[in-house]
Amino acid sequence: MNVLLVYAHPEPGSLNGSLKDFAVRHLEAAGHAVQVSDLYAMQWKAAIDADDNTARQAGVRFDPVLDSQQAYASGTQSPDIAAEQAKLQWADAVILQFPLWWFSMPAILKGWVERVYAYGFAYGVGEHSDQHWGDRYGEGTLAGKRAMLMVTTGGWESHYSPRGINGAIDDILFPIHHGILFYPGFEVLPPFVLYRTGKVDEAAYGKVCQELAGRLDSLWQTEPIPFRKQNAGDYEIPALTLKSEIAPGTVGFAAHMETV
Amino acid sequence: MNVLLVYAHPEPGSLNGSLKDFAVRHLEAAGHAVQVSDLYAMQWKAAIDADDNTARQAGVRFDPVLDSQQAYASGTQSPDIAAEQAKLQWADAVILQFPLWWFSMPAILKGWVERVYAYGFAYGVGEHSDQHWGDRYGEGTLAGKRAMLMVTTGGWESHYSPRGINGAIDDILFPIHHGILFYPGFEVLPPFVLYRTGKVDEAAYGKVCQELAGRLDSLWQTEPIPFRKQNAGDYEIPALTLKSEIAPGTVGFAAHMETV
Repeated sequence: MNVLLVYAHPEPGSLNGSLKDFAVRHLEAAGHAVQVSDLYAMQWKAAIDADDNTARQAGVRFDPVLDSQQAYASGTQSPDIAAEQAKLQWADAVILQFPLWWFSMPAILKGWVERVYAYGFAYGVGEHSDQHWGDRYGEGTLAGKRAMLMVTTGGWESHYSPRGINGAIDDILFPIHHGILFYPGFEVLPPFVLYRTGKVDEAAYGKVCQELAGRLDSLWQTEPIPFRKQNAGDYEIPALTLKSEIAPGTVGFAAHMETV
Repeated sequence: MNVLLVYAHPEPGSLNGSLKDFAVRHLEAAGHAVQVSDLYAMQWKAAIDADDNTARQAGVRFDPVLDSQQAYASGTQSPDIAAEQAKLQWADAVILQFPLWWFSMPAILKGWVERVYAYGFAYGVGEHSDQHWGDRYGEGTLAGKRAMLMVTTGGWESHYSPRGINGAIDDILFPIHHGILFYPGFEVLPPFVLYRTGKVDEAAYGKVCQELAGRLDSLWQTEPIPFRKQNAGDYEIPALTLKSEIAPGTVGFAAHMETV
């Protein structure tokens, strides 16, 4: 299988760097083809702007949505954007690896999402009608592919527990899992999360690698997070609220999983 | 009073650009002093990296936390970082204005947070003991100041309602409200959110400005979101989970508000 690892840490000698190298070696040893988008090494441009459309008319107001649509449709996207889209098309599974900074992904990775997720590619896909509100949330360009987060954090696991002060890790990651990965069609696997990175000594590191290896070995067997598909009958269209008979009375991110 | 507006949109002629100009004019007309950090116009560097410490030793492994700590303590931070910290110190209120892109802030603004929020300034502040786990979540360098988000989104309000497919807007913004603003001490006001931006015509724009003016006029009267302070007795330390008698049985972001 083909695996794309999108990696966002500035220091190759970091714990994240070691885990990235381990993951690549482990996947390749298992016979998979691996591509790595090492965003810091690539000096990835984080800010979406008018230069992302190489054929735009001077003097026209820049519109992030319309410019993205036009550039994607006419093949005039900045080459770095098109290259990442090709990697996503090539991949059977995508791993986003990053340290959790201020309760979300690093800016450089957020900028990868914003620029690579073009209109017509990751959003603005499919028809809109009373039964179908675009190919999104379970359908879309990246349907049939799997995605997983590999996340590290300095905080303790209890701080990210259901009653922990930072908020539950599943809630913190929901906007990424659901809003960035499930949205254009990925099946989203439960995340691999490593807590309290400051306490990872050599013995702990060996155990972490073992756990990570297990997750990589089961990339194609692990049950995805059972997010509800937008156009499969659970939502009113176009309000896109859960129908009253679906998880009645339940609110919050968890209501969008079929297990609730 | 002094107001800092941190603004993240690439196009001055956009709806966001107009609202920014309106907010500045309105605040100044009311006698406030306003500074704007227009991140795109400033070509703000989004990615934190080794260059952010102007005095770091060559050949030493870059550690985002340790380098930040060292540079902040020794006054060798990159000048753009120190300038933003000075604006935050100057401000009585801070407004972060941005379009919601992929359910969070634009990369360029996330990179502002990551670089300006130095160790010793926004985190790593205060003592750690069994009663007190650092000056954070309600205490810290920015205590006594107020903060508010000004957010636009193309999606409909119902899509962001408690049972809407995107997740409730309060949950989507929690990692920013609680994890980025309350964390270093801000009192956090309810957000100003504008939905379905594609449908804002001239008449609607007038109404939006009226509502925004109301929020700006009441910046110092609006009740902040009642987040629980970390060191005020509601949390076990150091597990930082809610004590069992606090909002018993409740999980999720809302448990961290005193109204629950």
